[in-house]
Amino acid sequence: MPRLEFWYEFASNYAFLSAMRIESLAAARGVEIVWRPFLLGPIFRAQGWTTSPFNLFPAKGRHMRRDMARIAAARGLPLVWPEVFPAETLTAARLALIGESAGWVAPFSKAVYAAEFQEGRDVSRREVLTEILEGLGLDAPALMAEAASDPVRAALRARTEAAIAHDIFGAPSFVTPDGELFWGDDRLEQALDWCVAAPP
Amino acid sequence: MPRLEFWYEFASNYAFLSAMRIESLAAARGVEIVWRPFLLGPIFRAQGWTTSPFNLFPAKGRHMRRDMARIAAARGLPLVWPEVFPAETLTAARLALIGESAGWVAPFSKAVYAAEFQEGRDVSRREVLTEILEGLGLDAPALMAEAASDPVRAALRARTEAAIAHDIFGAPSFVTPDGELFWGDDRLEQALDWCVAAPP
Repeated sequence: MPRLEFWYEFASNYAFLSAMRIESLAAARGVEIVWRPFLLGPIFRAQGWTTSPFNLFPAKGRHMRRDMARIAAARGLPLVWPEVFPAETLTAARLALIGESAGWVAPFSKAVYAAEFQEGRDVSRREVLTEILEGLGLDAPALMAEAASDPVRAALRARTEAAIAHDIFGAPSFVTPDGELFWGDDRLEQALDWCVAAPP
Repeated sequence: MPRLEFWYEFASNYAFLSAMRIESLAAARGVEIVWRPFLLGPIFRAQGWTTSPFNLFPAKGRHMRRDMARIAAARGLPLVWPEVFPAETLTAARLALIGESAGWVAPFSKAVYAAEFQEGRDVSRREVLTEILEGLGLDAPALMAEAASDPVRAALRARTEAAIAHDIFGAPSFVTPDGELFWGDDRLEQALDWCVAAPP
């Protein structure tokens, strides 16, 4: 089965759009999704951006908000803008990395995005993440402690370095088995189709 | 008939994609296209950018080149990357403004884009623009002189001010009769559908 890597940052609203539809689109094409959480902050900072481009460039930010509202309405997707944007996503990303090994990265990631963009909550907050973990039947205190451990911190740094090595500069990004990079929720179908068409 | 404003900058490769398909898509939906050439340079400079973001952010530029190649191939569209990118488009934009009043803005604009992105030519060059005008059966020397006149210069400055007033920050952009702004070739179908669905 062809595999598509889904590279996402929890603060990215367009990655939220992809997270909520990638599994059904992939299943329809017989593609396996590999969830790859990473941090955009270090990549943005390396090019001189201290926050989201949607905050740095206000007209771009205003268009994005309308674009999101139009797309969410067209897809029948609830959308509640988060109280803090962009969210600080360090702990959420570390937890997602643990979930990758443990097998719950997809439901955890979708629950984080739902809390952030469908309930408007601040997913940097410890109690929000605890509630999400408990909602999945997981041992929240143990996982929060593990998320702060040196191996998990190092793994997230390595993941973000891997994103840079793939030439990733934004989220969502999709990487095919033959190394083709697609950026943006509006390129998700193209990326999946590329996976299916490319030789194994 | 609903009208959609197509705001474009000749240096924009994604606006090239839209220019080559907007008329057939609009005709299929019964939408009239209003061609609105403007300059992105002053808008980019106001936010501190001295050239195209695809040059300022190299990873973004590398992705754009692949994205363009994939989309052009899927659409059966010839694509030859221009020798100079982004092109200096001041004279081309002034000529297009004259063409708006005179009724040849659409064929002229498509011919400029074809020379730039399908033949790889530098459309800042006087001889390239002259050849395009002559190819349309127009009086090139007279039009080149008119393009340098004060009224045309003032009209292009006013047009770019109007783009800013519409909150336009990139190209292509589409503005519907009820003031909705859509950015990007990948939003063209949405913009046209919005025009058709919106009350007159």
